[in-house]
Parts: sequence; structure tokens; C-alpha cells
Amino acid sequence: MAYRVYLSGEIHTDWRDQIIRGCKDSGLDIEFSSAVTNHEASDAAGDCLGEEGSQFWRDHKSAKVNAIRIQTVIKHCDLAIIRFGDKYKQWNAAFDAGYCAALGKPYITLHDEAIVHALKEVDGAAQAWATSPAQVVEILTYITNQA
Amino acid sequence: MAYRVYLSGEIHTDWRDQIIRGCKDSGLDIEFSSAVTNHEASDAAGDCLGEEGSQFWRDHKSAKVNAIRIQTVIKHCDLAIIRFGDKYKQWNAAFDAGYCAALGKPYITLHDEAIVHALKEVDGAAQAWATSPAQVVEILTYITNQA
Amino acid sequence: MAYRVYLSGEIHTDWRDQIIRGCKDSGLDIEFSSAVTNHEASDAAGDCLGEEGSQFWRDHKSAKVNAIRIQTVIKHCDLAIIRFGDKYKQWNAAFDAGYCAALGKPYITLHDEAIVHALKEVDGAAQAWATSPAQVVEILTYITNQA
Amino acid sequence: MAYRVYLSGEIHTDWRDQIIRGCKDSGLDIEFSSAVTNHEASDAAGDCLGEEGSQFWRDHKSAKVNAIRIQTVIKHCDLAIIRFGDKYKQWNAAFDAGYCAALGKPYITLHDEAIVHALKEVDGAAQAWATSPAQVVEILTYITNQA
Amino acid sequence: MAYRVYLSGEIHTDWRDQIIRGCKDSGLDIEFSSAVTNHEASDAAGDCLGEEGSQFWRDHKSAKVNAIRIQTVIKHCDLAIIRFGDKYKQWNAAFDAGYCAALGKPYITLHDEAIVHALKEVDGAAQAWATSPAQVVEILTYITNQA
Amino acid sequence: MAYRVYLSGEIHTDWRDQIIRGCKDSGLDIEFSSAVTNHEASDAAGDCLGEEGSQFWRDHKSAKVNAIRIQTVIKHCDLAIIRFGDKYKQWNAAFDAGYCAALGKPYITLHDEAIVHALKEVDGAAQAWATSPAQVVEILTYITNQA
Amino acid sequence: MAYRVYLSGEIHTDWRDQIIRGCKDSGLDIEFSSAVTNHEASDAAGDCLGEEGSQFWRDHKSAKVNAIRIQTVIKHCDLAIIRFGDKYKQWNAAFDAGYCAALGKPYITLHDEAIVHALKEVDGAAQAWATSPAQVVEILTYITNQA
Amino acid sequence: MAYRVYLSGEIHTDWRDQIIRGCKDSGLDIEFSSAVTNHEASDAAGDCLGEEGSQFWRDHKSAKVNAIRIQTVIKHCDLAIIRFGDKYKQWNAAFDAGYCAALGKPYITLHDEAIVHALKEVDGAAQAWATSPAQVVEILTYITNQA
Repeated sequence: MAYRVYLSGEIHTDWRDQIIRGCKDSGLDIEFSSAVTNHEASDAAGDCLGEEGSQFWRDHKSAKVNAIRIQTVIKHCDLAIIRFGDKYKQWNAAFDAGYCAALGKPYITLHDEAIVHALKEVDGAAQAWATSPAQVVEILTYITNQA
Repeated sequence: MAYRVYLSGEIHTDWRDQIIRGCKDSGLDIEFSSAVTNHEASDAAGDCLGEEGSQFWRDHKSAKVNAIRIQTVIKHCDLAIIRFGDKYKQWNAAFDAGYCAALGKPYITLHDEAIVHALKEVDGAAQAWATSPAQVVEILTYITNQA
Repeated sequence: MAYRVYLSGEIHTDWRDQIIRGCKDSGLDIEFSSAVTNHEASDAAGDCLGEEGSQFWRDHKSAKVNAIRIQTVIKHCDLAIIRFGDKYKQWNAAFDAGYCAALGKPYITLHDEAIVHALKEVDGAAQAWATSPAQVVEILTYITNQA
Repeated sequence: MAYRVYLSGEIHTDWRDQIIRGCKDSGLDIEFSSAVTNHEASDAAGDCLGEEGSQFWRDHKSAKVNAIRIQTVIKHCDLAIIRFGDKYKQWNAAFDAGYCAALGKPYITLHDEAIVHALKEVDGAAQAWATSPAQVVEILTYITNQA
Repeated sequence: MAYRVYLSGEIHTDWRDQIIRGCKDSGLDIEFSSAVTNHEASDAAGDCLGEEGSQFWRDHKSAKVNAIRIQTVIKHCDLAIIRFGDKYKQWNAAFDAGYCAALGKPYITLHDEAIVHALKEVDGAAQAWATSPAQVVEILTYITNQA
Repeated sequence: MAYRVYLSGEIHTDWRDQIIRGCKDSGLDIEFSSAVTNHEASDAAGDCLGEEGSQFWRDHKSAKVNAIRIQTVIKHCDLAIIRFGDKYKQWNAAFDAGYCAALGKPYITLHDEAIVHALKEVDGAAQAWATSPAQVVEILTYITNQA
Repeated sequence: MAYRVYLSGEIHTDWRDQIIRGCKDSGLDIEFSSAVTNHEASDAAGDCLGEEGSQFWRDHKSAKVNAIRIQTVIKHCDLAIIRFGDKYKQWNAAFDAGYCAALGKPYITLHDEAIVHALKEVDGAAQAWATSPAQVVEILTYITNQA
Repeated sequence: MAYRVYLSGEIHTDWRDQIIRGCKDSGLDIEFSSAVTNHEASDAAGDCLGEEGSQFWRDHKSAKVNAIRIQTVIKHCDLAIIRFGDKYKQWNAAFDAGYCAALGKPYITLHDEAIVHALKEVDGAAQAWATSPAQVVEILTYITNQA
């Protein structure tokens, strides 16, 4: 059975691709999942259900449609990688981390040293803190391949 | 049995006091809990266990000591109020929200309209969004006192 | 410790009062809980959080505020009484029954014979079907007082 | 692994077929499940276990046989679609919604605007409200196919 | 907080009284609970809900009313004592044992050596096997009082 | 995915074979599981771990080895069939029923009318009561094949 | 409500007394629990149930009687302190740590630096590592008293 | 579906190989899993995330990376074999046993008679105690193959 990894957080750099490609290059049997990472599509996820006059309700509908997918992939995953970039609030990534922690799903955070203090609670419940996609690939290789 | 409310998030304004005082003035039977809100004490929570050379491990130890208290009060609470101010990252508040969501603990978010878009996933799993402590007091009064 | 009974459903007749009074007359040590049963207050539960242009979102906000209370009392109860009257859709009562069933909370339905067929799935997961508040009082007396 | 969707509720229009056909036309990898939707067969589900003198017990036996199937497909599903038509009580649909809510299974309601107020508690715990099978297909396409 | 002990099984000898009296004599702070042990009352538990033509449905209704009480006390107990006498089938006692085992509630069986082989699965999941109420009192004294 | 059915209880008649053959003849996609049904093998399950001087410990060891298999198949099953014959105590069958009930696993009892009263608690938590393997096959056909 | 702390592990030094006294001196509202710490009594916990010819079964019976108490206090505790001394195997302490970890109960380990490497898995799942009872008292004071 | 067995504990003898080979020779359909058993690789599991100045944090990081794998295989397994050798503390093996016990995962211990007393709590929650890999193979053959 393939090992299942959920990739959560930042959508503005290619960290997901680096991890997926790195694991593929190493021949690892891993199924990756993500929330929808197309920003416009994600913001518009609920639009097909009818237009809204206020920003709050448009966001609300889209967030709940997106949550259908996110909840499922978190429940099915063996491990989550939670990525925090150096811009934006990224509260959804911290939310996913808390969700994983409460379900007992192990997760690894991926972020620069500069934001270590602000992320101390999120890191405190993580199994590991990585600073580069290459480190994540190395950990995944170790976990799934080492005898 | 007293209704138990966990107050999570921002520690730089007096929103906790406003809610607690408002509920007391209305004679509500509510037990409030919080993480340690003294900033210095919180950052130093793990210092008594020995000094650390790196910022990461000092933070790590303190975060995990604080988590002992936070996990317990979340598990015991009937409702959480999760507050986001207009400054700082406040990832711990979003983490708490995700933790509550996964455990099926209802929560109310408390924040300004300006950050609605950034908080859409956190609001999407909330039972309500309030913009002032007075609204929270009104909801708490309704929930615990209305026939 | 008092036995805890959640009274769910119809708010247009005095069935709650009959059960509560009957149990009190028999000296039973029972704590009763309910959703807010004041119809106008219940529909307006979310109004303090801001006005809404559409009926759907006004209802949505109020329903989620009411759910804060309902989830808590269901989780704390030992038994639920689910009442279906002869008018209205009362989907919230059937929803509560399903919620109880999934949590393993025992419940008794209270309704006339005329709607037996329409309620067969709800009755199928119930521990008993009663047709009068007096029968419920008799069952509660038996459960809590019989040696 | 195929995404699993449980279709609950009304059996008098072809909404199930529309959703299943729509998803098939879009090439989605989805496994659909339902309660038995043949009305006569469903009402007679328990008849092979012996005849009953009363309507209540005939219904009771059939409802409990049907529940064997329903419980299993709810527990296995990733998402439920709960349909309310404009006729009948459809308490079983609301019961399924409550059951899903308590298990943390996301669901989408599918119903006309006319019954929004009566369904506010059921919609309040839903991830989305759709008014047409086409919208459900669009959401399912988004959830399972969008990058 | 008092230690809570559920006493399940045989109702034809005074083993419950012996245990309760023994613990009282030793000054133990224990709350005991039981199913209804009055045989006629127990068989008639559902009669107030209407007469039945068949033995099966009369038994069924009473069993489900009794289960309301039994489920609650099992969920609240810290320990169950499951007693098997030398007469009757006592399948309800074995059912309670299986129920406890699945919930992770520890239980002690109380029965003669003569039926050891027939009870091997029930004993296999028990924390202890006692042959006399006095032994049960001794164990309870040890568990609750020993430093 | 095949529907999984656990067959529990009596090992002295061929009811298992009748059900398995009946389902096969109907082309149902069902995986059946059982405890070990070879009586001598079952009693000797723990013998390879060393001889015991007392009947109790020999039984104990074998029962716990058998429980490894039984727990797994109960946890994996969608439905259990619990069979009570007219001889022996069969406490293990009632134990399995209680175990299923606590886990929310639906089960059908299979027994003659003569023992209805003694089995009322076990039947009270069952989804159905059948008196012949043919009825069980009919229910299984309905659950897995009916549109 | 008092904070509940379970004290697990070594019984040959007075670390329990130091913690309990320290908390008392600081006026903390904490309820402490332990397994039976009288070595002879603990080893003899099952003796009242009959003598055994082999060491294994004597130990087995006593261990299972002791487990009745231990399981209950772990399930009821808010925090566990797990103490490893410099002698003996103390596998029961590591067992308790694993049990807590799987239940999501936070625990603090208490041991010397000399055994850090051997305890890395146990420390890895802990919320903190302390080397003296005084540190534990300081953490408990912080968790329960700090504003 | 293959039966899944987790092999936990001692890494200095070839007991894993003996069990795996024995099961293969018997044609059993079993998937085995383990923590990483290469001692140096295991101790260095976290090194790729950055060097540490202290032994404690190096161990900590590696232990938590290893726990990612261990948690997953425990959650997926049907049975664990927990091996204790005659050297070293092996607290991780006892930790795994406690983790399994709390999750309701059955396990078999594998150790010599000499350490029976020290392992009484671990054995007390086990389904069986074996002294040789050959016995484990015999049990696995029985559990998975016996009719």
C-alpha cells in the first residue's frame, strides 16, 4: 500500500513540486494529496452555488467546499507536510496543523528559521521541522525505504 | 454544572477581561480558561528545565509545557472563543481552531472584518464570527440563559 | 449524580412541561435540557452578529448559534426524548435523532401512531416509542428509581 | 482509490441518476452508494423474517434491515449528498444528516429555496447547499479533479 | 470522586448485597449500579408503552427500555463485576462482558470453577476471575484503599 | 469492495456452510470470516506455548490466542451473524454480540423461537432476528444486491 | 475542579512525596494518583484469588488486578509524571508512557541525564523532561496557577 | 487482504528474520512491518535536519522522525509481536506495548522466562507470551490458516 502524504500550506512557490519530483526520482511509493492549489479556482470554489453580495459569505461558501476535500485527505493521510512561507498570514496551514494534532496524524513543518518563534506552538506538536524540500524528501526516503 | 469557555488567541488587548466582566455582570455561570497570557512567563515556561543554546529549543520546550495546559482546557471546554488581532501571526490561535474542529468542539471567532479573507478556512469551521467582545457576551447569555 | 435528559423537537405544545412536572412530582433526580424553545428568540439567535440581506444566511447564522447549545447538551445527556408533533417538518428533531444514534446516545421517540410509517427509520434506531408524556415519565421513573 | 459518495433522501425524482450520469460524463472516479431506493422492496425489507400483525412492527423490522446497509455506506463514504424534495416528511434524510454530522462526515444538502427555513439546522451543519444536481456534479468535479 | 462499580448478571442469589455490604463495612467510597434486578418489573419494563400480542415484541420492548439504564451505567462505571450462576443461560451477562471489553472497561468475572471451560472467552478478556463475593470485596478494598 | 460478514457462534451444525453456499449460489460478493471452528484445534490454540497444569490456564491461553483472530475480524466486518443453537451455554456468542453492539457493528441473531426470552437483551441490540440460514441469505442478497 | 496528576514508575525513592509535598506547600489544587506503591502488596494483588504453582501466573494475576486501578487513573488524569530511576527494568513505566501517548494524555518524564539515550522514544512523545521533583513542582505551579 | 503484523523491539538477534522466513515457508499471506532496525541509521534519523550540540536533542529529533513510521505501522497492524532480549533497557518495546494496549491492538510478547517478573505488566495486557520465534510462527499459522 502506498504511503500517503498530505501537502498543506503555501501555494506561491514550487515546494510541492520539489518534494513530489524528489520522491519520484528516488522511486518512493507515495501518494500525495493537496487542497486545490489554484488560487483563483480555490477562491471561487462555491461560486457555482450562487452569487453572494458580501465578501464574507463568498469566502465562507468556498472555504466549506474546499474543506470537503481537505478533511478527507487529512483523514486518509499517514503524514502531513505543513509549509509556511515568508508572506501572508497562512492561518489555514496552522489550522491544518491543529487538526492533524488533534487527530493524532503526524506532521512535519517546513519553514525558514526566521519564523521559528511565531511558529513555536505549531512546531511543538510536529514530529520534525525541515527548512528545505530536499530535507523532506530525505525524511520520506528514510521512513518508507530504510530497512 | 458551569458552562466552560476557553479563550484563545491575542494577548495584547483586554478582550478576555471584557468578556469575563460582561458575563459576570449578567450573572452567567461560566468557567473561563486560557493559556498563560503573561507573555514573558509563557516564553519562559520551559526555562526551569535547563537552559538552551538555541532559540528553537528554548521555544520548543516552552511551547510543549504550555501545551500541557492548553490541551487540557480544550478537552474540558464546551466552547472556545478564538481571537485574532490586527498584528502578529497568531498561528497558535489558528492551531487551536483546527484542534477544536477536529475534536468537534464548537468555537466562535472574534476578529475585524479586515481579515475576513485570510481567515476564511478558520471561519468556515466556526459556529459564529463576532467582531466585538460585547457580541460574544450576548451569544453566551443567549446560550446559557434563554429558556 | 443527576440523570440528564435532553428534550428535543416540537415547541408548540406543552409536552416538555408535562414531562418535567411529572418527574418532579415523582421526586426524580433528573436534569432536563433543551434547545432554546422561544421561537422568535431562536430564529433571531444570530441577529446580534449583524444583519443579513438573505433569509438563508440569517437562518444559517441562527442555526449555528443554536447548535452550540444543542451539541453540548446532547454530548452531556444520558437520554434524549425526541418529539414529533402533527404539524411542520421538524427536520431538526430527526437530525437530533440521527446525531444521537451516531454517538450511541439512547433516545425515546414521542409521537402519535398516525406518523409511524414516516418515522420508521427514526423509530428503528430508538430505544422506545411513546405516545404520551405520561408514558415517558413512567419510563424515566422506572429507569432511575426501580431497584 | 475512488472517492465514495453516499446519496441520501428523496426517491421520487431522478436526481441520483442525474448526478451519477453527470459524474460519469465528466470521467470522475467516484463510487456511489444509496439505501435501497425501490420503495416497495424497502418497505418489505423485513418481511422474509416473518409476518407482523401491526404496521409499527412491520416498519420496524424493515427499517432495521435497511439500516444495516445505510450504516455501512455512511461509515465508508467520503461525502454524503442529502436530498429533500417538496413532498413527504423525509425524516430519514434529516436523520442521515444528523448521523453524518456526529461522525464528522461532510455532506451537501440538495433542495429548493422554498424549504430553506425548515431545513436551517440541517443546512447549518452542511458543507454546502445546492439546488440542482448539476451544481453537485460541478462541486464533485472540483473536489476530485482540480489541481 | 467515588469509585463506580457496575454489578451485572445473576439475580437469584444475594451476591450483590454481599459485595455492597462488604464494601460498606470496610468503609469504601464506592457507588454501585445495576440493571433493574426485580425480575417481574424487568420483564414488564416496556408494558406501559402498550400491550403486545407476541412474546418476542413484549421482550423486545422491555429489553430496550432496560438497555437505556444499562448502557448509561456501563459507560459511567470504572469497573464491572459480571456474575454467572449455575442456572439459566445468562446471555445478558456475557453480552455485558463483551460490551465492556469493546469499550475498554475492565471487568471481573464471578463464578464457580465448574463453568470455567464454557466461560473461557469471557474470562479471557476479564481482569480477574473470582469465586466468591468476599474475594471481590478484597480486590475492591485493595484497588481503592491500598497506598 | 466485498461486503464482509463475520459468522459467530454455534459450531455443531452446518449453518455457516448453508449461508456461505447460499450467498455463493446467488453470486454475492461477500467475504466471510469466523473464529476457528475446529473444536479441538480451538481448545488447543495456546498449547504450543507450553503445557499448563490447570484447566483454567489452558483455557485462558487458548481463549486469548483465539481472541487475536476474533477481534480483528469483528473490527473489519460490516455485519455479524450471531448463531445460538439449542445446546450448550454459548456465552462466547453473546460476548461477541455485546462486543459488536459497543463498537456499533450491526448484527443479526439466528436462533429458534424457543429461546427468545433468554436472548431478549441480545436480540434487543440486534438489527434483525432470523430463524433459518435461508432468511440470512435473503437479507444479505437484499442488502448487497437490491438497487 | 482539581487538576489530576498520575504519578507512574519507580517506587524505591521518595520522588512522589517530594512532588506531593511541594505542591501542597505551594497551595496547588491537585489530586494525585498512583498505582499501588507497596511492593509486596502489589506483587500479591491477585493472591486472594487463589494460589498459583508458577511464577508467571502469580505475576499475571497480580498485574491484571493492578491494571484495573492503573487504567482508571490514567483515563481520569490530566497529566502523568513518568519516573525512571537508575535501577531495574521499569518496563511498566515505559508501558504507561506508551499508553498515555496513544490516549493523547500529556506526560512529563523524570529521570537523570545518564539514561537519555535509552529513553529517547519515551522522551520523544513526552511534553517535557525533568531531572528533579522540584522542577516538576515548578511546572505544575506554572500550569495550574499562572495567569 | 493480507494480515498485517508489526515486529517491535530487540534489534540484535535475527528473531524478525526467523518469523518472516517461517511464515513465508508456511505460505502465509502476512505483511510484516518494523521500525528502522539499522541501529546507526535509526540513531541518525534526524541528522539531515541539522546538527545538534547536545545528545538529548539529537536523540529527540531522531526519535520523533522514527515515531512517524512507528505510529503508522501500529495503527495499520492487526497484531504486534513485542520482543524483549536479555540486554539493554528496551523501553521503546514496552512503550510500543502500552501504545498497542491503549489502542486495542492485540500483541504477543516474545521473551525468555528469566524476565517474566519484570515484564508482568506488559505480559498482563498481552494476548500471549511466546519464548521462541517458532512459537510465534505457529500462532500466526493458526490464526490465519486454520479453518
